Amino acid sequence: MASVLIREAKEGDCGNILRLIRELAEYEKLLDQVKISEEALRADGFGENPFYHCLVAEILPAPGEPQGPCVVGYGLYYFIYSTWKGRNIYLEDIYVKPEYRGQGIGSKIIKKVAEVALDKGCSQFRLSVLDWNKRAMDLYKALGAQDLTEAEGWHSFRFEGEAMRELAGK
Amino acid sequence: MASVLIREAKEGDCGNILRLIRELAEYEKLLDQVKISEEALRADGFGENPFYHCLVAEILPAPGEPQGPCVVGYGLYYFIYSTWKGRNIYLEDIYVKPEYRGQGIGSKIIKKVAEVALDKGCSQFRLSVLDWNKRAMDLYKALGAQDLTEAEGWHSFRFEGEAMRELAGK
Repeated sequence: MASVLIREAKEGDCGNILRLIRELAEYEKLLDQVKISEEALRADGFGENPFYHCLVAEILPAPGEPQGPCVVGYGLYYFIYSTWKGRNIYLEDIYVKPEYRGQGIGSKIIKKVAEVALDKGCSQFRLSVLDWNKRAMDLYKALGAQDLTEAEGWHSFRFEGEAMRELAGK
Repeated sequence: MASVLIREAKEGDCGNILRLIRELAEYEKLLDQVKISEEALRADGFGENPFYHCLVAEILPAPGEPQGPCVVGYGLYYFIYSTWKGRNIYLEDIYVKPEYRGQGIGSKIIKKVAEVALDKGCSQFRLSVLDWNKRAMDLYKALGAQDLTEAEGWHSFRFEGEAMRELAGK
């Protein structure tokens, strides 16, 4: 039987990661917001001071199977800073292709992120999820996460485009 | 009359910043969650690869006034990464002491963050706000921010403590 490996992404994975980023945005019904390129992903994640880190889930074929390994999911994270707790991790994206769901691959990615976080001295990691994505919400809660929007009332705000340029007087 | 200067924080500001962090957490009714120390703020914000950046709002006394300059607010931010847009800024905290509100100091801090963001090639900046803090929500909206929790349904989740150690098997 094929097995799953969760490993750090390499620069050569960026093409696959971009395809998965686009699939995730499509699933979130927000594909029109994706402006990133493979070149940007390569430059930003694999230089001296990378802006992000990425895990990929790879299906390793059983011996004798003709196809090569295949990337079916990813978790992209970076380090953030809490003025209450210090250094932490933010899991920006987590995604598993629909045909590979229900096998625990998402949980494996989350577990690996928790491991990295503890190794790097972080006491928490955060992520965001859309309220209609009940399956994801239930998974995170089952794994022990707290919904801070529900529990404490946190709302996410974003400035962009014209609003930002106007603020900056540019 | 006294005037306000928004400037980058120096290491020597960390004591003042910590006092304001604690005031903000108290205002948010979450003071028990603050575990950070002045030493951690110094080490994490002022090394070679700082984990965060900070702006402070300083009241400069009018000529002839006896007191020295006084830090009355801060905005603490760091760089994050969007898989849709690339490098962005997250404004983790913004706070102005109650007795200095209503003078536009918060807006000045936000404008400065927008300026830094554009200078660094970021196309957006994000922040979080508690739903009962209507004054802050109204200010951000008036300045052109979008409430993504309201508009798209984003919820913030957090893993920490026991849940994280269990996930990581530690």
